[in-house]
Amino acid sequence: MRRMSELRTVEWVQGQVRMIDQTRLPDRLVYVTLKDYRQVSRAIKGMVVRGAPAIGVAAAMGMALAAKTNRSKSRDEFLKALEVAAETLKASRPTAQNLFWAVDRVLRKARDTPPDLDLADVVIAEAKKMAEEDVKACLSLGQFGAALIQDGDQILTHCNTGTLAAVNYGTALAPIRTAVREGKRVRVVATETRPRLQGARLTTYELLSDKIPVTLIVDGAAGYVVKSGMIQKAIVGADHITTSFVANKVGTYLIALAAKANNVPFYVAAPSSTFDLRGEKSDIKIEERDAKEVTFVNGRRIPPRGVVAYNPAFDLTPLELVTAFITERGVFTPEGLKANPSQLQADMA
Amino acid sequence: MRRMSELRTVEWVQGQVRMIDQTRLPDRLVYVTLKDYRQVSRAIKGMVVRGAPAIGVAAAMGMALAAKTNRSKSRDEFLKALEVAAETLKASRPTAQNLFWAVDRVLRKARDTPPDLDLADVVIAEAKKMAEEDVKACLSLGQFGAALIQDGDQILTHCNTGTLAAVNYGTALAPIRTAVREGKRVRVVATETRPRLQGARLTTYELLSDKIPVTLIVDGAAGYVVKSGMIQKAIVGADHITTSFVANKVGTYLIALAAKANNVPFYVAAPSSTFDLRGEKSDIKIEERDAKEVTFVNGRRIPPRGVVAYNPAFDLTPLELVTAFITERGVFTPEGLKANPSQLQADMA
Repeated sequence: MRRMSELRTVEWVQGQVRMIDQTRLPDRLVYVTLKDYRQVSRAIKGMVVRGAPAIGVAAAMGMALAAKTNRSKSRDEFLKALEVAAETLKASRPTAQNLFWAVDRVLRKARDTPPDLDLADVVIAEAKKMAEEDVKACLSLGQFGAALIQDGDQILTHCNTGTLAAVNYGTALAPIRTAVREGKRVRVVATETRPRLQGARLTTYELLSDKIPVTLIVDGAAGYVVKSGMIQKAIVGADHITTSFVANKVGTYLIALAAKANNVPFYVAAPSSTFDLRGEKSDIKIEERDAKEVTFVNGRRIPPRGVVAYNPAFDLTPLELVTAFITERGVFTPEGLKANPSQLQADMA
Repeated sequence: MRRMSELRTVEWVQGQVRMIDQTRLPDRLVYVTLKDYRQVSRAIKGMVVRGAPAIGVAAAMGMALAAKTNRSKSRDEFLKALEVAAETLKASRPTAQNLFWAVDRVLRKARDTPPDLDLADVVIAEAKKMAEEDVKACLSLGQFGAALIQDGDQILTHCNTGTLAAVNYGTALAPIRTAVREGKRVRVVATETRPRLQGARLTTYELLSDKIPVTLIVDGAAGYVVKSGMIQKAIVGADHITTSFVANKVGTYLIALAAKANNVPFYVAAPSSTFDLRGEKSDIKIEERDAKEVTFVNGRRIPPRGVVAYNPAFDLTPLELVTAFITERGVFTPEGLKANPSQLQADMA
């Protein structure tokens, strides 16, 4: 098994986008190569690539593909075509803030490009730069987060927030990886994360490959392990953070409630690209995915025919339940964040 | 599809114990017939029969089989053999209070039997009587609980607490069934209940057969549906209730926390045989089941080989999170229960 931290989830390779097909893990480590931004959009929708930062970079690279394959004669036409690609990519998944941020950033870069430069070159360079920035941000937030981890901690996490959720290294797993590299003994309890089982399939895979001890539980057992004193900290990632709430994989809110009720610190690890702190936002669109993700496991139907399922992919955790945010710019309490949002606001269009 | 409420989960038929094999549902409605108490113990362990009241009655019928097949010459030998069967049956699953209660009640009945009566006849009659009492208790708690349900309510439930969890009619589903019979429009949101998927397999099956609208969600989505205002009440069953906590299917505690945080009433429906109110009890043995229940779904492994799973079958919900208990003797608040436990204490050995 290759160490995950040697791999890149999404990469620009010889004018194409190469990504790990996460739907095939843990059985096979397979790469897919995409040549068109529509393929990238479909890959995001189908969760070939998932995890907010990874989606963001994948979308930026989708924009790079749109630029590379753009045959427009004029600058205006070129930008219009890019805008069409931007709309398609942003519509792939409705909740991930990093997706909107990444696409808008590339679009802004293109618009701001001086006339003497080649637009396609600039867009491709920007996408590649964003991938590098993501790697650096994860390493940096790993450093800040590791300082919060004590030797001997057992840490609860949800969904997958490792290498596979970013370009490399990860968000909520980054502080754990760094703490382990610093010589701390850290164990992880991973929720399986129904319906797509990212915890069972991906988080365990990554941690095994890094030789970090991991115990798998069903999502419903999170309350019991927190209440029983087995857990010293919970660390999760995020898909969208505002001054009111954290949107993250469905089930996060329950873990936050259990942590609060049992005085266990609850940390959210995310790069600034996940934050959207402009104004008061008390609600966002929560993606509702295909009911079949709930009613079928491994291609086999679980409930009787005719049963309706409701499948929200995310939930909203109020900021009051968050002990602190771990970011590449440091550790922030919710109060600190609200008092001075600009310190974490990513550049926005 | 036959209406579940016409069926009996566990029944004494011509000197044998007949039960629905719940591991085969919803694909097939199959009965198994058991002739020996050891078979009953294995059926309880393997969750052929599950649900606290159903386990209790199945165990009582296991005692009846032990009595029927008893070839002891003397009364003392007979009672000793019954005690051996009692130990085996009580060891089948360590958390269900109804199991201990039922076995002890049958044993006490045998010990108290006057010498002129046939011990086997008495034990068999007692087991049959307990099955009838269970049916009546569920109907009665259904009546009390239905009064709490308003027309138009959408009710969240966890695991399976219907006909299949008792002899007939159920615990947490009983108030819903009765409310529907009274003409109220009630919809149910059922959690799938990993790892054994009793919600997805059994609760949906029962409610479909009763034509009560049901929506299936993953366990992690319970917080989101409660917080979004989709739910007017949560009703769950219980496996063991003390003056400190409710032990119920793992995941219950998280639902209770979400209900409390969002001012949604959280009810626990259980017959008095589930209560053990003698003295202060702050902890009980929580059954830890085979890790394969977590790592395999439909016979297929989910995480990579080598991943360790932890599989507690139950969790503990503090009484402070319970709005009220719905029982066959009426509706009781936790305060009322603590102030006067005798009103709900089942007869104990």
